[in-house]
Amino acid sequence: MNTAELVDLAQQLRVDSVRASAAAGSGHPTSSMSAADVMAVLLAHHLRYDFDRPAHPGNDRLILSKGHASPLLYSAYKAAGAIDDGELVTFRKLGSRLEGHPTPRRLPWVETATGSLGQGLPVGVGVALAGKRLDRAGYRVWVICGDSELAEGSVWEAAEHAAFEHLDNLTAVVDVNRLGQRGPTRHGHDLDAYARRFQAFGWHTIQVDGHDVDAVDRALGEARSTTGQPTAVLARTLKGKGVASVEDREGLHGKPLPDAEEAVAELGGRRDRRVRAHEPSATRTLHSVPTGRLEAPRWEKGEEVATRDAYGEALAALGGARADVVALDGEVGDSTRAEFFAEEHPDRYFECYIAEQQMVAAAVGFATRGWVPYAATFAAFLTRAHDFVRMAAVSGAGVNLVGSHAGVAVGQDGPSQMGLEDLAMMRSVYGSTVLYPCDANQTARLVATMAGLDGVRYLRTSRGEAPVLYGPDEEFPVGGSKVLRSGPHDRLTVVAAGVTVHEALAAADVLEGEGIAIRVVDLYSVKPVDRETLRRAAEETGCLLTVEDHHEEGGIGDAVLDAFTDGRPVPRLVRLAVRTMPGSASPDQQLHAAGIDAASIAAAGKLLVEEAVVR
Amino acid sequence: MNTAELVDLAQQLRVDSVRASAAAGSGHPTSSMSAADVMAVLLAHHLRYDFDRPAHPGNDRLILSKGHASPLLYSAYKAAGAIDDGELVTFRKLGSRLEGHPTPRRLPWVETATGSLGQGLPVGVGVALAGKRLDRAGYRVWVICGDSELAEGSVWEAAEHAAFEHLDNLTAVVDVNRLGQRGPTRHGHDLDAYARRFQAFGWHTIQVDGHDVDAVDRALGEARSTTGQPTAVLARTLKGKGVASVEDREGLHGKPLPDAEEAVAELGGRRDRRVRAHEPSATRTLHSVPTGRLEAPRWEKGEEVATRDAYGEALAALGGARADVVALDGEVGDSTRAEFFAEEHPDRYFECYIAEQQMVAAAVGFATRGWVPYAATFAAFLTRAHDFVRMAAVSGAGVNLVGSHAGVAVGQDGPSQMGLEDLAMMRSVYGSTVLYPCDANQTARLVATMAGLDGVRYLRTSRGEAPVLYGPDEEFPVGGSKVLRSGPHDRLTVVAAGVTVHEALAAADVLEGEGIAIRVVDLYSVKPVDRETLRRAAEETGCLLTVEDHHEEGGIGDAVLDAFTDGRPVPRLVRLAVRTMPGSASPDQQLHAAGIDAASIAAAGKLLVEEAVVR
Repeated sequence: MNTAELVDLAQQLRVDSVRASAAAGSGHPTSSMSAADVMAVLLAHHLRYDFDRPAHPGNDRLILSKGHASPLLYSAYKAAGAIDDGELVTFRKLGSRLEGHPTPRRLPWVETATGSLGQGLPVGVGVALAGKRLDRAGYRVWVICGDSELAEGSVWEAAEHAAFEHLDNLTAVVDVNRLGQRGPTRHGHDLDAYARRFQAFGWHTIQVDGHDVDAVDRALGEARSTTGQPTAVLARTLKGKGVASVEDREGLHGKPLPDAEEAVAELGGRRDRRVRAHEPSATRTLHSVPTGRLEAPRWEKGEEVATRDAYGEALAALGGARADVVALDGEVGDSTRAEFFAEEHPDRYFECYIAEQQMVAAAVGFATRGWVPYAATFAAFLTRAHDFVRMAAVSGAGVNLVGSHAGVAVGQDGPSQMGLEDLAMMRSVYGSTVLYPCDANQTARLVATMAGLDGVRYLRTSRGEAPVLYGPDEEFPVGGSKVLRSGPHDRLTVVAAGVTVHEALAAADVLEGEGIAIRVVDLYSVKPVDRETLRRAAEETGCLLTVEDHHEEGGIGDAVLDAFTDGRPVPRLVRLAVRTMPGSASPDQQLHAAGIDAASIAAAGKLLVEEAVVR
Repeated sequence: MNTAELVDLAQQLRVDSVRASAAAGSGHPTSSMSAADVMAVLLAHHLRYDFDRPAHPGNDRLILSKGHASPLLYSAYKAAGAIDDGELVTFRKLGSRLEGHPTPRRLPWVETATGSLGQGLPVGVGVALAGKRLDRAGYRVWVICGDSELAEGSVWEAAEHAAFEHLDNLTAVVDVNRLGQRGPTRHGHDLDAYARRFQAFGWHTIQVDGHDVDAVDRALGEARSTTGQPTAVLARTLKGKGVASVEDREGLHGKPLPDAEEAVAELGGRRDRRVRAHEPSATRTLHSVPTGRLEAPRWEKGEEVATRDAYGEALAALGGARADVVALDGEVGDSTRAEFFAEEHPDRYFECYIAEQQMVAAAVGFATRGWVPYAATFAAFLTRAHDFVRMAAVSGAGVNLVGSHAGVAVGQDGPSQMGLEDLAMMRSVYGSTVLYPCDANQTARLVATMAGLDGVRYLRTSRGEAPVLYGPDEEFPVGGSKVLRSGPHDRLTVVAAGVTVHEALAAADVLEGEGIAIRVVDLYSVKPVDRETLRRAAEETGCLLTVEDHHEEGGIGDAVLDAFTDGRPVPRLVRLAVRTMPGSASPDQQLHAAGIDAASIAAAGKLLVEEAVVR
């Protein structure tokens, strides 16, 4: 396209952004208008993308990190012929694919859900990493960022990671329109301020008038030809560009234009320009996935093994069987045992240093390209990435997250290192699976099983050693549980998982000595939960005692309730959980102080079978 | 102290760090040894601190962001005479104040709990902001950071915020010892790499040999005399400095020295040097708190008001009555309505831009200095700061967090903007209070009540307008609830909160028309929960139906269970919650699609009273 045609395309994108927002009665047209020239030039001259084949392995990847500018993205899809005008004006309506913020659940051309700012670039880094280190399919990753979102620390985790990995297949275009939601950004139109920051982190930077299509064209070309480092194109723009009544004005964020018809006229009226993006280069399939026989690690019953060790060994074995498995870690691979994978498969291991948001974002990026990522850190520190986990669910991304050092059983390190909220966090994620093994063979099985599930999968591992309870050939279906003790005279069911399974078994021995038979259920699948077994246990034993190394809210006690919220009779319940703020102490002392050790279980169980009220 | 004495003090700190870790059998002596010279110089020559009066308003504030180097901090306390040698060797033992990572719950000289890396500097920014803008007591804030933790984005949110606010009372000393937990950091000993980054963000930087006490002394002096910007002292150090067998070696993170006795000998043996820090300058009390009469906003029953509007108005009024209230917002003050406070009390309003981690950290910082912070953003985006909220609880910090735009009721913006996990997140925080008002007068009361509570307090507000249900003089105690409908023939209790209260009332009307009387409970206090009312309702009506604009895990349904986990008989239960991934749609359409509107409640309620199983 020549200059005039590019300008005309950009105006069309503005017109359609205004129209879509007007039809919806809400949306962010002014945030779309600032970036319209960038989008027009990118679409017409630089993006290599086959809109008929969004799964084409050679397609470039376009991420609109400022997801609220979705009208611009959808207008671009229309110009590319991917959607028609009738669909464009369904924007933000019930049932429409064109949501307020774009999601890949609905639209095949969207790489990752955005709308929580500061996430597009970190995910883009993951995609670019996959492209450069694994796929090698020649695609580029283009991320359009807002200026406001550069205040998010996650952007600088991404900047650091991208430069360190020399991701020259990654370009961030920052739409510096000077205005955030409620007013001016910190740096306004000071492009130098942004350039200094990106340069300091090792990026190539280009400053450009974002409304000069030829200048933008040259900048994107320069980005493509820059090697050895990622490029940030800093585009000076005006919010609401093209319509005088809204251009560069405060107080208009997230609002349709006051008079859409007049605005369309001012922008030169409707037009129906089509643009065909460059073809992606022919390429082999993204990655072959030779799946071999899994030589899973095996342990004998009674061996003392930490589940984190089992995770590391099982993942290393899985990586041997499946060529699509990758591992990430937040600079604690010697603790999570992800290092076992790193030693065997260094080419598929990604050190994320202490940047948990970037780690989870990179995992999402790998997942978008068909890889099966396992990302691990301490369970406590996964809370750092909560918003990324939440958005992974909105994306429908298949990621495996592993939190080690769960609960007070960590011991001496104290509360800052103890995951005591992770089950609540992970259970509340849409469509998630939450697994919490108590022994090494169970861990190994679940690690392999996770790979084939949908959505966000979470595995909780423990620091300390524990005896192996199950044989190496035992199976552990997701949504199942294991009844470890049971008999015809059980008067109580103790439901435990992870470290408390061992305490529950010890408590069962104690109570047996006192003539009280109890059932013990190992609830390794915390979500989905084994409703059938829990209901049967309730019917047969009359009451349930849950015990967990987690705060009392949102964990195993609440998960068990899930079996009884359909109006059926509910058994009497007692919940043992961590209710105090731990200090430093040995693991055994911690379990005792928290009231979740064998002695506490036995005492509470005894009270419960005696039908007393316990609290 | 002269050079020799400073060197001697530093060696003593090393010796005591080694001894404490040896006595514990765990801990991080090598991470302590690298920063010992910095600590010695800081303590002897620069820190103004009265260890007998940790609450002295003029005291400098020392934050050990690399909290795992706690042996060094405790050794410094010993050198300052704050603890004795007998206590030093209780390190990491049950009942000791000297935890693996320092917490202010146990030790009066600790400003904020650390141990989750990348949090000390953001909290320090909050303290420095309080010092510069509010307290004006002349204290300085010293933060000792590790080099590994500079990978955390939160550090760069803090760097940005500190420079933008010209916090020249803040000094970050980075202990660049080159080694993280599992190996070398990204930048090793490349101090220039760190200097470029801090400079780009607007900091003054000083590079120094961290083991040259005179050079460190000059650097800290230069930091104190630098005006207009914060200073980062980048200290080149060696992990394990002073003991050849561990110095600058990998694989020794978090481990006591192999031979403590030999190491102590190599370090010159035990000594008992005392150091008296400089006195803080005399100062007035930190801030007077003139508490006037609260002129709370009042609304008439039936008025249509959004609870977010009520939050803004109530907070502005509270700020008028209480001079110790400050407000923070993540660049969405026009949405959360924090802007109402900003308009009336601009001197106590802190714009944090889109950096939720820094926002919550700053709130914690304000709280440490006795201020009462309210920090607001969309409920969904508070997940970004989950780890900071968790650590605020470890600190015991009193912070008010406000999440607006809760649930699917947000409408067209779609799932990225909907807080659907926030109740689970906030309930699982140790010692938290979780409040979720349904009308404006209730909101106003709760906003004022929150100020006086302990720990983390969370208020959930809604975007849309709703009718005022309560008179302006109604009281809403924390831990209470309101029975909005009840009668002698109630066959079911619907427990709702926020937006679903209105739906429940409408459902009650529908069912009444069908001859089914139901009770409606407004559970505005989600944690602690009103056990008494719920138990009475269960006894009197036989079954409970919970309905919430939140995912089914960890929210109101689970909170209600809390009344029945002591072994007493449990009522039959049905839980209505958001179980699908919403798209864009109007608020009414969203509530209906999620099955939490009046029609859904009525239908489920009817089934339940007919004793059917509902799912």
